[in-house]
Amino acid sequence: MKREKVSTAVIRRLPRYYRHLEELSLAGTERISSQALSAAMGLTASQIRQDLSCFGEFGLQGYGYNVENLRREIGEILGVNRGHRAILLGAGNLGRALMANFHFDRCGFTLEAAFDVDKALIGQTVAGVPVLDVAELETYLKKHPADVAALTVPGPVAQELTQRLAQAGVGGIWNFTNVELAVPPTTAVESVHFADSLLTLSYMILKG
Amino acid sequence: MKREKVSTAVIRRLPRYYRHLEELSLAGTERISSQALSAAMGLTASQIRQDLSCFGEFGLQGYGYNVENLRREIGEILGVNRGHRAILLGAGNLGRALMANFHFDRCGFTLEAAFDVDKALIGQTVAGVPVLDVAELETYLKKHPADVAALTVPGPVAQELTQRLAQAGVGGIWNFTNVELAVPPTTAVESVHFADSLLTLSYMILKG
Repeated sequence: MKREKVSTAVIRRLPRYYRHLEELSLAGTERISSQALSAAMGLTASQIRQDLSCFGEFGLQGYGYNVENLRREIGEILGVNRGHRAILLGAGNLGRALMANFHFDRCGFTLEAAFDVDKALIGQTVAGVPVLDVAELETYLKKHPADVAALTVPGPVAQELTQRLAQAGVGGIWNFTNVELAVPPTTAVESVHFADSLLTLSYMILKG
Repeated sequence: MKREKVSTAVIRRLPRYYRHLEELSLAGTERISSQALSAAMGLTASQIRQDLSCFGEFGLQGYGYNVENLRREIGEILGVNRGHRAILLGAGNLGRALMANFHFDRCGFTLEAAFDVDKALIGQTVAGVPVLDVAELETYLKKHPADVAALTVPGPVAQELTQRLAQAGVGGIWNFTNVELAVPPTTAVESVHFADSLLTLSYMILKG
């Protein structure tokens, strides 16, 4: 599988392909033309062909794509079969919403533990996930290395916790705070910016 | 202000410009070169010049951009000064997280009410916002028209509520469910896809 020099824009579209193909697969669709896939995704057919060509040869002229094969291949590229392990820092409303309702497993992750400072939460389990004392973070990670940490803590403690996570070898931070995190080059950060999304909607509803 | 034929990709970058300029402004930075702005945002300087040229003339050759002016202009384009009104449907963990911690006002929105079916929540206020009975949605909207509704409800009721919102004249749905919502052409949908974000991070942490 080719992996070099793939642009961020292409990488960001891969999960959308994966999601659409999953829906098609669940709906029993076996094959799809690049035209139909592009119409469903609001992209051009040539854009899709170009995106996928970054990773190898998919689809056949005149046949289109086999939905399940393409879904599996894109899943491979995204790493959904690597047995990734996740922890979560901050078991407040947002953290608990993720713990109770977000399907980590559908993205190939197991959420193994949550951490908080609140004595009332520590020791509880939420949707089967134990809430531990954040003071034990390093001890826990030594025994149970995690690939990714979801960061759903108040902004003022986000950077300090990021440093502790990076030092403990956590390779990816899923950042829900609105803090721009400074990380060493070995740590990846992916931020969910609610404000960017709402501002986009603000633009979309403007009349004239 | 020009508004025609601006691509989705450009529109999606505008909130990021706005956010960076807000941070620069708060930090007391008065002017910035397109090179410095582009380095901070991971874009090329020519990309930034091209994006902004969609909306008019900004910046001066050899001077760069006046941070506060550019922030204000992009805010205008995004509609942050239109006095947008928002409601929220679904006062569960995620809904309450948004009510308590998300700064709607920084995006130019006032969150005026939340709606739920849970009798235990109805009548409460969360961070100053009243939780009302969703049965009263239409009655409420007749008296208090809303521009946008944040949808933080369980997937199975998302489409039905979307139809009620669209019929009641709500122009934008901020969709936190993983349901692909069908809407009339007069209604805009902006979805926050947590899974897309985690899958992107999954890709970023893959080694070799």
